[in-house]
Amino acid sequence: MSDSSKSNAMWGGRFAAGPDAIMEAINASIDFDKRMARQDIEGSRAHAAMLAEQGIISSSDADAIREGLLTVLSEIEAGDFPFSRALEDIHMNVEARLKELVGEPAGRLHTGRSRNDQVATDFKLWTRDQYDAALAGLDALIAALLDQAEAGADWIMPGFTHLQTAQPVTWGHHMMAYVEMFARDRSRFSDARARMNESPLGAAALAGTSFPIDRDMTARALGFDRPAANSLDAVSDRDFALEFLSCASICATHLSRFAEELVIWSSAQFRFVTLSDRFSTGSSIMPQKKNPDAAELVRAKVGRINGALVGLLTVMKGLPLAYSKDMQEDKEQVFDAADSLMLALAAMTGMVGDMAANTDALRAAASSGFSTATDLADWLVRELGMPFRDAHHVTGALVKLAEDKGCDLPDLTLAEMHSVHGAITEAVFDVLGVDNSVASRTSYGGTAPDQVRAQIARWRSGA
Amino acid sequence: MSDSSKSNAMWGGRFAAGPDAIMEAINASIDFDKRMARQDIEGSRAHAAMLAEQGIISSSDADAIREGLLTVLSEIEAGDFPFSRALEDIHMNVEARLKELVGEPAGRLHTGRSRNDQVATDFKLWTRDQYDAALAGLDALIAALLDQAEAGADWIMPGFTHLQTAQPVTWGHHMMAYVEMFARDRSRFSDARARMNESPLGAAALAGTSFPIDRDMTARALGFDRPAANSLDAVSDRDFALEFLSCASICATHLSRFAEELVIWSSAQFRFVTLSDRFSTGSSIMPQKKNPDAAELVRAKVGRINGALVGLLTVMKGLPLAYSKDMQEDKEQVFDAADSLMLALAAMTGMVGDMAANTDALRAAASSGFSTATDLADWLVRELGMPFRDAHHVTGALVKLAEDKGCDLPDLTLAEMHSVHGAITEAVFDVLGVDNSVASRTSYGGTAPDQVRAQIARWRSGA
Amino acid sequence: MSDSSKSNAMWGGRFAAGPDAIMEAINASIDFDKRMARQDIEGSRAHAAMLAEQGIISSSDADAIREGLLTVLSEIEAGDFPFSRALEDIHMNVEARLKELVGEPAGRLHTGRSRNDQVATDFKLWTRDQYDAALAGLDALIAALLDQAEAGADWIMPGFTHLQTAQPVTWGHHMMAYVEMFARDRSRFSDARARMNESPLGAAALAGTSFPIDRDMTARALGFDRPAANSLDAVSDRDFALEFLSCASICATHLSRFAEELVIWSSAQFRFVTLSDRFSTGSSIMPQKKNPDAAELVRAKVGRINGALVGLLTVMKGLPLAYSKDMQEDKEQVFDAADSLMLALAAMTGMVGDMAANTDALRAAASSGFSTATDLADWLVRELGMPFRDAHHVTGALVKLAEDKGCDLPDLTLAEMHSVHGAITEAVFDVLGVDNSVASRTSYGGTAPDQVRAQIARWRSGA
Amino acid sequence: MSDSSKSNAMWGGRFAAGPDAIMEAINASIDFDKRMARQDIEGSRAHAAMLAEQGIISSSDADAIREGLLTVLSEIEAGDFPFSRALEDIHMNVEARLKELVGEPAGRLHTGRSRNDQVATDFKLWTRDQYDAALAGLDALIAALLDQAEAGADWIMPGFTHLQTAQPVTWGHHMMAYVEMFARDRSRFSDARARMNESPLGAAALAGTSFPIDRDMTARALGFDRPAANSLDAVSDRDFALEFLSCASICATHLSRFAEELVIWSSAQFRFVTLSDRFSTGSSIMPQKKNPDAAELVRAKVGRINGALVGLLTVMKGLPLAYSKDMQEDKEQVFDAADSLMLALAAMTGMVGDMAANTDALRAAASSGFSTATDLADWLVRELGMPFRDAHHVTGALVKLAEDKGCDLPDLTLAEMHSVHGAITEAVFDVLGVDNSVASRTSYGGTAPDQVRAQIARWRSGA
Repeated sequence: MSDSSKSNAMWGGRFAAGPDAIMEAINASIDFDKRMARQDIEGSRAHAAMLAEQGIISSSDADAIREGLLTVLSEIEAGDFPFSRALEDIHMNVEARLKELVGEPAGRLHTGRSRNDQVATDFKLWTRDQYDAALAGLDALIAALLDQAEAGADWIMPGFTHLQTAQPVTWGHHMMAYVEMFARDRSRFSDARARMNESPLGAAALAGTSFPIDRDMTARALGFDRPAANSLDAVSDRDFALEFLSCASICATHLSRFAEELVIWSSAQFRFVTLSDRFSTGSSIMPQKKNPDAAELVRAKVGRINGALVGLLTVMKGLPLAYSKDMQEDKEQVFDAADSLMLALAAMTGMVGDMAANTDALRAAASSGFSTATDLADWLVRELGMPFRDAHHVTGALVKLAEDKGCDLPDLTLAEMHSVHGAITEAVFDVLGVDNSVASRTSYGGTAPDQVRAQIARWRSGA
Repeated sequence: MSDSSKSNAMWGGRFAAGPDAIMEAINASIDFDKRMARQDIEGSRAHAAMLAEQGIISSSDADAIREGLLTVLSEIEAGDFPFSRALEDIHMNVEARLKELVGEPAGRLHTGRSRNDQVATDFKLWTRDQYDAALAGLDALIAALLDQAEAGADWIMPGFTHLQTAQPVTWGHHMMAYVEMFARDRSRFSDARARMNESPLGAAALAGTSFPIDRDMTARALGFDRPAANSLDAVSDRDFALEFLSCASICATHLSRFAEELVIWSSAQFRFVTLSDRFSTGSSIMPQKKNPDAAELVRAKVGRINGALVGLLTVMKGLPLAYSKDMQEDKEQVFDAADSLMLALAAMTGMVGDMAANTDALRAAASSGFSTATDLADWLVRELGMPFRDAHHVTGALVKLAEDKGCDLPDLTLAEMHSVHGAITEAVFDVLGVDNSVASRTSYGGTAPDQVRAQIARWRSGA
Repeated sequence: MSDSSKSNAMWGGRFAAGPDAIMEAINASIDFDKRMARQDIEGSRAHAAMLAEQGIISSSDADAIREGLLTVLSEIEAGDFPFSRALEDIHMNVEARLKELVGEPAGRLHTGRSRNDQVATDFKLWTRDQYDAALAGLDALIAALLDQAEAGADWIMPGFTHLQTAQPVTWGHHMMAYVEMFARDRSRFSDARARMNESPLGAAALAGTSFPIDRDMTARALGFDRPAANSLDAVSDRDFALEFLSCASICATHLSRFAEELVIWSSAQFRFVTLSDRFSTGSSIMPQKKNPDAAELVRAKVGRINGALVGLLTVMKGLPLAYSKDMQEDKEQVFDAADSLMLALAAMTGMVGDMAANTDALRAAASSGFSTATDLADWLVRELGMPFRDAHHVTGALVKLAEDKGCDLPDLTLAEMHSVHGAITEAVFDVLGVDNSVASRTSYGGTAPDQVRAQIARWRSGA
Repeated sequence: MSDSSKSNAMWGGRFAAGPDAIMEAINASIDFDKRMARQDIEGSRAHAAMLAEQGIISSSDADAIREGLLTVLSEIEAGDFPFSRALEDIHMNVEARLKELVGEPAGRLHTGRSRNDQVATDFKLWTRDQYDAALAGLDALIAALLDQAEAGADWIMPGFTHLQTAQPVTWGHHMMAYVEMFARDRSRFSDARARMNESPLGAAALAGTSFPIDRDMTARALGFDRPAANSLDAVSDRDFALEFLSCASICATHLSRFAEELVIWSSAQFRFVTLSDRFSTGSSIMPQKKNPDAAELVRAKVGRINGALVGLLTVMKGLPLAYSKDMQEDKEQVFDAADSLMLALAAMTGMVGDMAANTDALRAAASSGFSTATDLADWLVRELGMPFRDAHHVTGALVKLAEDKGCDLPDLTLAEMHSVHGAITEAVFDVLGVDNSVASRTSYGGTAPDQVRAQIARWRSGA
């Protein structure tokens, strides 16, 4: 049997029942939207309480509904809820079970709402939890970075441009660069969470309702800041998902940059860092070998997160108002991206907490490549009053001299320096070592250990 | 308890065991790569047979391995295989179970190969099945379109540009436009399948092996055309997955275009087509209402497929040779895109097979909006020898006249036409009706029913 | 000559000078980064003033530099500045010309900074202008939508789900849905602008500087809220560009949705709206024809904006700190996306301002398709105390009855209704017309004209 | 004046003329589609010749048109053609100028065609040239790689997985991995070119034409294999552009991988390769520093190419047939991606041609990290008959022993080896050196120099 016919058989088998099976497969969402069971039940409980408060249903009906929903939730959490594809989605699965449990009152729950505002509410609640999870994950990662930064506020390492040694910097300074990035991510998720926190519940199918509902009450009960102000928009809006994915993509980009550094730093050629065994994998054959698997996977996760963003942007392109079934394709993108992001944040936090800087290798790398040439040029400008461009020229000549001699800049004698420029004084040697170099960069945000410690203190104080 | 703390608890719970749980969660692939169980076992059986043939292992060991693997396969297919996350992936799960079943010979199976070429082989075999499934799915869709085209080779409908009626065309012609698109998709998948059909097996970790393996033999056994010619490339290459996703994205774009038409055509305002109940959903409250859910979902599927393409392109960007763990992120993208594509093709095939054209509405729409103005202009050029641009001017004046009179072009009298241009003759009326118009467009590939039927015949004959 | 050889010749010609021409073509950025000339000069003038204030250069040098830079700016704005590819980028072009103009002091300008912080500063300033342009463009569009909403606060139109008539809504309500969307875009751009408004200037190459610079002073002079707090991050950060592109993609998605509606509404089948001639194109041959070109182009613009976002996310993936040349690929993405967004906003604003709703067609469409069936069901629940699901069942029977009779719901007699359910009273007719329907949907954010007017008032008051 | 008001003024200024300026800015394509001038004129000349051949226009008119078009082309190529935005696009610009040059016959040129098939033809011809340019560019790059491979067929370097040394390979083998990749790209572009080579000309607006045109004749004249078989599809199809972008994205991904290696290999820590000065940039201050700018830019180019693919996929999503103005957004994406790809290919070819492998550093790196542990394990399997998994265990113990002693595997004495496993013989030392290791990997496609040379010979022979 050829692969082709096997494959056909597989599909044929899957859709053997014909069009009905195909329709069920493409239409039913219960396989994935059951992840929103808790949110669905929370929303329905809040809705039932409001209906009773407003006199739209009786208190006894509301009580029966609210109790029954707790039972449904406990069945789902216990793992013995019989999800049915024929019932299509989580909303109908829950409501059908509720009807079995409490009978006629179940039929009154859906008064003054529709599946359109219900699903928007459920999905918003679920996504809001992910905003919170991202914020918590970022907090943990930032804390781990601050610890690393504090430990190595004065450890010397090379600062690269183009992966070429440019100037010496401190380990703490490098860690704090990522604190800035992840703090921006935090700020971004935080702003987005505030923006999205409006309740769709009560928008009904799309036009609102003639029942005297109280949307403020349900909004409050579900932790929303206010009800969404336009019912057509409330059921059509997926900005909260798109913005979550945007924030996640940028955050995952930051993670990928750090992960790339960890992979490169773990190479035999760099040896800047040793990752813990817990986040590496070994080889049965080469016991000394440690593969930075977790770092590579964190680096890769940005792929699927960017893909989810593109996926949902593509789905939403050109959709007329209000609800279109296309929008059912929103959830899996966010589910997958959220899982990926939380996992990547957790793995990176673990790696940062565990990793050991190889301070000797870092210092040696920072000391090579005439990394303090800029300091020399700056000295010429500052002390001898040379224009910057001229100072560069003189420095180049001195570096060339050192290179020809096979030594580094601090190893040149003053006499040798005079062969290039006669006004250089002994004081120049104060700026040539890597320690002098980093200590001198005291401009705000610079790499000097004191600057780094000041930034750590600022972050620790929560500013 | 706030949503935030619930969410933290969830993640806390999930990773309560700490770093080890995080590492297992990010590192283990068994949750998804078990879909390649059949391919893994096929590959191992071919490898074992070759090892014996080459005298690298004994025939009895090979027999034990090959039998044992069949047992493993039957356990997996029966659904009672105990997949283990601790064993990370499908390869180790299968091998560990094989060891339990056959003992020591199991330890000889991995001779002359590595997980790197093994996973590349498995994933290629899996993806190749999807190429075949896509080809079969496209064949079915094209067949359904040919049937529709044949039935309506001369049904008149509006040809749109900018969603404005431009010229009358035939239903058959419109259906055949999609045959062209899906046939190009077919050609694209077919070329890609031929290109990817090279066996990675025997590339080993990345350098090849010193065992006297016969890569041609395993290639043949697995239906490959030849072994891949460079072992570093063989384990690093994911072009076959990227190209599958590219082909799928273009195909899904075609599906989205047709789906958009079905949604618009199903609106109360267009009423061009009636979709079958099987691919629509109704409303309990409005029994006459039919929502084109399947068409909307088909339209949306292009989102996640484009997303998968972007996801994998992003993952592969800038990866040094040879294998990096990032590449583990390849499978879920292809799995999801393949499932989505096959489902969208099946749903579209079902919809096309079932749908009923509303020929009256189509004809009425085609007959409005002065849709044969171009025919009139062409007549002026052809019969009166006017330059094209002048003929356009005269036609515009005649359309204006008809519009002012509230009639269509064929309703103007010859005398009225003479008020615009004196040389027009009675013969002009032969080109003004929509039937005359479509019948006249006999240029190759044009909308004339005879042209359409010729194209149907060409496709039916397999040319 | 074949196309292939022509093409080769073209490339051969372009790169005839060999590697140097290739390197210049790929490396030089002046062809595009000259758009940042004004920002570059602003940044340099602020830097020079600070250097003098801090005593790092003399006041007379600073004055000469600042004057010279104004001359350079005027030359560029006059269009007669001789941009040179050999000088690579805008920074070197400006500095080289400054040297010609003012001589030696020009060589002191670059003290305490580097091209890395300079380009980050220039690009941030340029992008910040685009944030402001987007905010202004959104304000204009929202104003146009509010005018449309006010004019048609009580015009009846169909509210669609699945492009099928679901319930009647008001024109004003539909316009206000877009006000919500574009207001979220406004909020998003505004948050992002606040987040990005930190000055990179003074970060120097990556480590800060030993010159006693005052980064607060330059930050203030350039309108930044504060200096960026980590010099490594300051030169490596392109979040402000990624977030601009994210915000632009979501905004363009909203525009694409509205544009899709305009295209569909402009079709002969819908005729919901008439776009002005200014944003349509005609046909020389069919003078009555109006193609909604601007709406189609607005719909399409989301493509290139999403593409720019993917482009820059891909570039930034996995880049180690600090500056890598890859980051030179940031600008063209933002330039193109910003131009596209501003153009799309302006075109949409123009279309909204000009468009005329065809109120008769809207009302007729809203009145068909039993669009008040939900109102009937709600009446049964509210007045007769039926459970929602039962009321749906009764309504379905009544709709079926009307459909069989070929009439709409308000056309049924009470007697006919009693054949389905005996408890229905004359009062039911109060909810069946489309005017009654929309008037009844008074829940917060609902489609009732009073609700719509309240929302308009809220937005007009700037709340 | 704030930045915001400046920016508004800019846009205000740009659109000061109001809606007409906005419409011209969004609608006119001449600013970019003038790149297709040559193709437009070729297409028109072929069309005119056919019209005359078929007796649709006179030979003298055709001659006048064809001559006039050559004049237009020469004006354009000379750079003194007055492009007009008011004339919108290249087609109208050329036709208007033709009318000035030859008068009345110009008005006959457009007989039997439309702008819809004309633009499809022009854009296909332009894109086809890019397919050819990509093929030529790939040929050049492959040739450069073959030269590098030949020179270093037996140079030893580390083969990496996870950027950790795994096994020694040869430089030639590594180069040949890229030959495989770029050859697949070649095959992909070639297949796509064959698929797209069908002529849209004569599809007219969308329905074909009633003029007795000969589409085969124009197809032949323009180098197409045949006319496209469905006129609706012919004007709606942009697969040729999407597929070009897909092929380009995959090719650019390959380029990014190699570029990443060059960047890492150029670091002070690796020093595997020295890039030529022509493709690096220096520092005025550190004359020894060489930044791999060209490699970084090649690595980055995949961003904008992926972005272009996403851009056009997004534009085409959900477009109903036939032509929609959205499709005008197709060209700039392809123009930009093609330019980027050709430049990246040329730059990479130049870098590969110029680069110098540092064979000592490569060999030293390959010899560290117990890189022949796998060879040892294979020896145990082959010579001692151990199961593979057991051999791994023994090898691990030997590596541990060497690591504890601070030596490499070949430095262990036989006695020391016997402390781990008594059956090891002197012969084991034959497989432990890196030269022995690579020489032994003679499986097809393996890293043994003879295998590499065989592959080079295969490619050189054109197989």
